[in-house]
Amino acid sequence: LKNKELFLVDKIRQRAKKQLSPGLRLGIGDDTAILSALPPTQELLITTDLLVEGAHFERRWHPPRALGHKVLARGLSDLAAMGGRPRWALLSLCLPAWVTPAWKKHFFNGLFDLAGKTGVALIGGDLARGERFTADIVVLGECRRGRALRRSAAKTGDSIYVSGLLGGSALGLERLRTGRPRPSDPAVQRHLLPTPRLALGQYLSRHPGVHAALDLSDGLSLDLFRLTRESGVGAEIRVADLPVFPGATLDHALHGGEDYELLFTSRPGLRPPPSAGAVPLTLIGVITSGQKLVLVGADGRRRNLPVKGFEHDL
Amino acid sequence: LKNKELFLVDKIRQRAKKQLSPGLRLGIGDDTAILSALPPTQELLITTDLLVEGAHFERRWHPPRALGHKVLARGLSDLAAMGGRPRWALLSLCLPAWVTPAWKKHFFNGLFDLAGKTGVALIGGDLARGERFTADIVVLGECRRGRALRRSAAKTGDSIYVSGLLGGSALGLERLRTGRPRPSDPAVQRHLLPTPRLALGQYLSRHPGVHAALDLSDGLSLDLFRLTRESGVGAEIRVADLPVFPGATLDHALHGGEDYELLFTSRPGLRPPPSAGAVPLTLIGVITSGQKLVLVGADGRRRNLPVKGFEHDL
Repeated sequence: LKNKELFLVDKIRQRAKKQLSPGLRLGIGDDTAILSALPPTQELLITTDLLVEGAHFERRWHPPRALGHKVLARGLSDLAAMGGRPRWALLSLCLPAWVTPAWKKHFFNGLFDLAGKTGVALIGGDLARGERFTADIVVLGECRRGRALRRSAAKTGDSIYVSGLLGGSALGLERLRTGRPRPSDPAVQRHLLPTPRLALGQYLSRHPGVHAALDLSDGLSLDLFRLTRESGVGAEIRVADLPVFPGATLDHALHGGEDYELLFTSRPGLRPPPSAGAVPLTLIGVITSGQKLVLVGADGRRRNLPVKGFEHDL
Repeated sequence: LKNKELFLVDKIRQRAKKQLSPGLRLGIGDDTAILSALPPTQELLITTDLLVEGAHFERRWHPPRALGHKVLARGLSDLAAMGGRPRWALLSLCLPAWVTPAWKKHFFNGLFDLAGKTGVALIGGDLARGERFTADIVVLGECRRGRALRRSAAKTGDSIYVSGLLGGSALGLERLRTGRPRPSDPAVQRHLLPTPRLALGQYLSRHPGVHAALDLSDGLSLDLFRLTRESGVGAEIRVADLPVFPGATLDHALHGGEDYELLFTSRPGLRPPPSAGAVPLTLIGVITSGQKLVLVGADGRRRNLPVKGFEHDL
């Protein structure tokens, strides 16, 4: 193990070294990375995301390149929801015996490609062996002081928006599980190669009328529940206004996970542009003073929104 | 899972809230924590450490309280080697079905006790379920700019020191595996409840004659190999001078892991005090210009030091 570990670390290190990163004083090689202090106008954002084989993915459906992409994308999405600019990442990997050198190569290709596109430098991590592939990604980033969007800042009367389309990832997962979809199937692409909404999050954090935000990792109902719970408010969502991914059901859109779109609230008068970057924004409901979640059907009937959440692959 | 997850997060959050932490702007609750920028005189240190059931520990030998302690201690030890002051931690946990509420309670008691003693605030993390207990700890800390000790800074002619005694943890693990030792057995204590050498590391980083340092997590031979490899030098170690833990063999002392003592080099003239805090310091050898590792036997005979490293529990 140890020599292999050193060898793998060397290879990762060579790739990581090619990345430029101002502020990085010491990266992979020591057990601890060193970063210069940020300017006092900035704040440091830090998030971790754990991905476990069998709980979050099955290797027969997830090509290694897509998995490397997704491991980093999940951490970036958390940062996107705050409006942060990602800077650095650390990766802890538990590798089972089935991991081949080719699999590892593709995994790191997927990860480093997304890192390059989003300006992230890999500065450290840890390696172990074990029975289940497990990856814990740490993403560090920055934002202007006091500007980070929080999930706890929604106010009664706020408009509720989502970016993009909902339910596509859950639909793609269903197709991967039950058939042999073409890899180019848009829903499958959506599940395998999610796009963290970094530019949108940064745009929203500069917009003074935007109050609360989070990323939709576990499904609209559960993530909306978290946002309203942290803010001490309720919400009303209109079925007719939900931007449902083509082919997805209402259930996919309400309870399917891993869309990695942003859910945000803004003061009622505000009208954000219909899209930010290439991502459409849709008004789907309103924040209410109670702590209930209400779903207004296409027929106008109101019922409680069940909070189902996303049970991952198993 | 989700409701349990929210419940567990709530409980951890209540405990985490009681910790004071200047500079922390947002802790557990959002997906991302927010920290104020450090003063420009400081640098940020960050390390991750992955602990996997079956690879790093067996639950039949490791009481949950000791495991919670060890998860954090391993991350703190990395920071200690640099001379850093720990400030914050994030914890990603993968919990199998066998984890009971009582087990979790003891695990977090062990972790929060050590966090309290070392001034660390838990500011975030992630939770998943899976087949093997896995914990990835992220520890953030700070040190004065340019003062962090690195493993790559050893110079030819440097004296090589270790803190404390070597081989005790490997001896304790052997006793846990092969018998039913008393829990108060000092070697078992040493394995289960290691002490990160934070005060010593901070002392060494202020000492201008100290060059390179790292913590002994995987055994003297492998960690010395890492230090010399990163520094482009060799080393000569004298068996007669090794501070061996009572009852441990030379093999335990040379190749046994998890002692979490510090290995450091200093310019030859320098004589650090015989102990720093309560931890004795022992001169065990010298940095050489070749890239070989040489072991000088008690009889004066020289042979290559085999680099065996520590194969963990399996």
